[in-house]
Amino acid sequence: MLSLASTYPYCKSWCGAAVHWLFHTSNFPTTLPCFSKFHRPFRGLSAEHFCELQKPNMTENGLGHRERVLNVDTMNPNVKRIEYAVRGPVVQRAVQIEKELKEGVKKSFTEVIKANIGDAHAMGQKPITFFRQVIALCVYPDLLEDKFPEDAKNRARRILQACGGGSLGAYSASSGIEVIRQDVAKYIEKRDSGIPSNPDDIYLSTGASDAIVTMLKLLTAGEGKTRTGVMIPIPQYPLYSAALAELAAVQISYYLDEDKCWSLDVGELRRAVKAAREHCNPRALCIINPGNPTGQVQNRQCIEDVIRFAAEEHLFLMADEVYQDNVYMEGCQFHSFKKVLFEMGPEYSSVVELASFHSTSKCYMGECGFRGGYMEVINMDPEVKLHLTKLVSVRLCPSIPGQALLDLVVNPPQPDEPSYATFIKERTANLHILSEKAKMTEQVLNTVPGIHCNPVQGAMYTFPRLTLPEKAINAAKEQEQAPDMFYCMKLLEEMGICLVPGSGFGQRDGTYHFRMTILPATEKLKIVLEKIREFHKRFTEEFS
Amino acid sequence: MLSLASTYPYCKSWCGAAVHWLFHTSNFPTTLPCFSKFHRPFRGLSAEHFCELQKPNMTENGLGHRERVLNVDTMNPNVKRIEYAVRGPVVQRAVQIEKELKEGVKKSFTEVIKANIGDAHAMGQKPITFFRQVIALCVYPDLLEDKFPEDAKNRARRILQACGGGSLGAYSASSGIEVIRQDVAKYIEKRDSGIPSNPDDIYLSTGASDAIVTMLKLLTAGEGKTRTGVMIPIPQYPLYSAALAELAAVQISYYLDEDKCWSLDVGELRRAVKAAREHCNPRALCIINPGNPTGQVQNRQCIEDVIRFAAEEHLFLMADEVYQDNVYMEGCQFHSFKKVLFEMGPEYSSVVELASFHSTSKCYMGECGFRGGYMEVINMDPEVKLHLTKLVSVRLCPSIPGQALLDLVVNPPQPDEPSYATFIKERTANLHILSEKAKMTEQVLNTVPGIHCNPVQGAMYTFPRLTLPEKAINAAKEQEQAPDMFYCMKLLEEMGICLVPGSGFGQRDGTYHFRMTILPATEKLKIVLEKIREFHKRFTEEFS
Repeated sequence: MLSLASTYPYCKSWCGAAVHWLFHTSNFPTTLPCFSKFHRPFRGLSAEHFCELQKPNMTENGLGHRERVLNVDTMNPNVKRIEYAVRGPVVQRAVQIEKELKEGVKKSFTEVIKANIGDAHAMGQKPITFFRQVIALCVYPDLLEDKFPEDAKNRARRILQACGGGSLGAYSASSGIEVIRQDVAKYIEKRDSGIPSNPDDIYLSTGASDAIVTMLKLLTAGEGKTRTGVMIPIPQYPLYSAALAELAAVQISYYLDEDKCWSLDVGELRRAVKAAREHCNPRALCIINPGNPTGQVQNRQCIEDVIRFAAEEHLFLMADEVYQDNVYMEGCQFHSFKKVLFEMGPEYSSVVELASFHSTSKCYMGECGFRGGYMEVINMDPEVKLHLTKLVSVRLCPSIPGQALLDLVVNPPQPDEPSYATFIKERTANLHILSEKAKMTEQVLNTVPGIHCNPVQGAMYTFPRLTLPEKAINAAKEQEQAPDMFYCMKLLEEMGICLVPGSGFGQRDGTYHFRMTILPATEKLKIVLEKIREFHKRFTEEFS
Repeated sequence: MLSLASTYPYCKSWCGAAVHWLFHTSNFPTTLPCFSKFHRPFRGLSAEHFCELQKPNMTENGLGHRERVLNVDTMNPNVKRIEYAVRGPVVQRAVQIEKELKEGVKKSFTEVIKANIGDAHAMGQKPITFFRQVIALCVYPDLLEDKFPEDAKNRARRILQACGGGSLGAYSASSGIEVIRQDVAKYIEKRDSGIPSNPDDIYLSTGASDAIVTMLKLLTAGEGKTRTGVMIPIPQYPLYSAALAELAAVQISYYLDEDKCWSLDVGELRRAVKAAREHCNPRALCIINPGNPTGQVQNRQCIEDVIRFAAEEHLFLMADEVYQDNVYMEGCQFHSFKKVLFEMGPEYSSVVELASFHSTSKCYMGECGFRGGYMEVINMDPEVKLHLTKLVSVRLCPSIPGQALLDLVVNPPQPDEPSYATFIKERTANLHILSEKAKMTEQVLNTVPGIHCNPVQGAMYTFPRLTLPEKAINAAKEQEQAPDMFYCMKLLEEMGICLVPGSGFGQRDGTYHFRMTILPATEKLKIVLEKIREFHKRFTEEFS
């Protein structure tokens, strides 16, 4: 993978001062320096001018000549090692190009289409009416006198009753509002065909990311060869690698099988854990199902195998199931790890420790901005639970609007309620459109010579494989860029399409990918796919 | 300070199994075991019964007899060391008592009054109308057709325009919505008499806690004697000690001067930093002004001295200014560290690194549940800023409703707008009532022999000193409790008043305090103060 610094080869080689200077006078991410030879924002300025403008990281005054307290040499080295491609250099350059377009700079395109992040509303998906009605009522209860559906009003009253002082403005218990934790437990029970869920095992969170990081934090201990190792899929969602870097835990990569539709093979898990035991203490296994960035949906057999493996290898299971409603492919079905675990009988369900995660940000609602989520912990040591509760207490509580929204997700309008018909219509439509777009993405990309795209069985992404000409790979290396970063940056500059290079998610050496969301509105998605087709052809010709 | 374990002395000494068992079958915080000899929830059960019910932290099945992957011995030792008294054992017991009252258990009181946390809405304070109107409009934009004040509608449109897809449901830039960062910068400029503020130095956050932890994280590095040390006041808000424990950074305590109204003395800072240099690398100095839990407001001279000290000792300054509107005492005034720093001239303003923090949770609005906040960083190394932006990117973005609310706080209705009069009326009333309650709290507590209460100059708390009889101190020790924990627990059990023991915030050895918020509604606050008076008298007699 690229280091952060190596994404600025051009500035560094031209004028060592330039990067520093830019960082000084204006802020990241809107004013990043150039990323590649294809973009030279400083063309008008001489190198001398740069150096003159540059303020060095030192100051001379009555207090003497000295460095900053906090600089890259003295800062937390774990933080320095973090990478997070979903909002990395390509995205930052995209923001810059948007500004340039606004300022009237002429390009061969008039808008940047961002397919880099699973942000449904930003891509035009409309919120679920009922959800927003209830939240508005909770925010401004005077509206309870207004013309709103009765079920929305009832729901708002119920939520407010559970809030301190009847206000969304009060803190809640750190694990979340009790009534909402009860509703989450009921939702899980219903989803899992009646397998019991205990509200005391539910912890509400600030999106799923928050809960995932919290679990990884609890699990991290030891030094050297006893340091906690955590198994994560490759390709992965980079929250995992970032959190492990921050915690200085050991990342244990297991590779998904691209040739088998990104499926998970237990043999590969065995290989990975065996190799890892030489240098760390493997303690947890993370699964993303449906997969991000790969879009695969695991079958029941696979989940059983994974659970058996976790039991045998004595690993704590973490199941990231935030795309549980996003299953598009016929024959595919979402199976929760919790359900499969309990259906395997007490031999497993009484011993395997599991944390599973859900969020308000994905599925049919896509309410990312509310930062709602929860985790359910199974077989967690009760004393550890105490420490977990204490740990989350320090941050007081997850956002209450986010908690309220989660309540509506797990307890939507019921068939006998006035809002039911509209709710079902909106939910079905959102999921249907996503399903159509998943198919279209696969179909169109697979017509492009040099792009291979697995079926998008679920989630919101495709992670197609690129065949890149040797010359392009060399050109990228010359610029100290990963070849797919080089590709994505060029695609952005020439076509205004913002994707994330596969190198940000991890991939087998010598393979190249990008991640693209299927979220742009259908007409825009068509344009995106056409532009990729056109670009890929041109790129292949240019470097052949 | 008490360790977590030592708060359960009774169970431990009676039946080693009891604590474990309780943790097993039900969840914290609703089912904590007894805390003291004054409360024996298990009276009806024999010790044998406990042991029989206890499920050990091991399981026998086909996979063999073994321990959990994640247990207290294998979990993150830093997390284990965290303490957070504001939601500690007294509060957990209060929640339990509330349940008992609901279930019909007879007590000498009919409700628990919680004065443990700065949670204004939970204590009955009403939200600012304009703020909630705008947020409701943003949540459910159909209301823009409805009868709302025009300025509220304009504000909502402006916020929505700055949101991805015009929805609160989209992610924002990780440092926050740009328009809102601009509004924050304008607010700071106005507050600080025109000293410029750059939106690129503003990072929105999930409450102030989030930003404070992020800064401490960036600052933590080194091992052994080079490990980062962070100076924090004693008494402190326990977020600081908790975050330092989690990061395994070194806490450097400096004591506020209780005899001088909890003022900060630079001589004490010198003593503390000198001692600390023997065993760690002091790199940051945290200031809470107005003070939590102490309620003092620092004068300009003191702030200048602190800045000079930070410059001399090469320390990064962190100014926690979340109570900046909460100044009650005549002659006291809030001075921001930023303003004072710049007024001291470039000798200081060009070198001293400063991060200051603000929040939507306190002041006149008290919107804790929205988890809004920001930090402004001054003289931060531009490369570190890059890493900071990357670090916050991993969590995607702060809650958008929280960001929107922050926007209204920093950009409230203006004199020429229709909502101005109501806004000013509500804000003034809220601050006036707080000011009255601050005075009342001090006056009443100081009439109690054995309680000494400094003036509540600002913030939302008092931290009065308790004279406790020797016998009471011994009784507490017998139960392995801090004497003020013993006191607060007894106060809760007998009076239904929930406070936080001073030991949770830190205090000079041999002194005892509690923290109490001034937030209960005036009539309730009177009851609280009367009950404390009555209890303290009785307690003193009982143990004399």
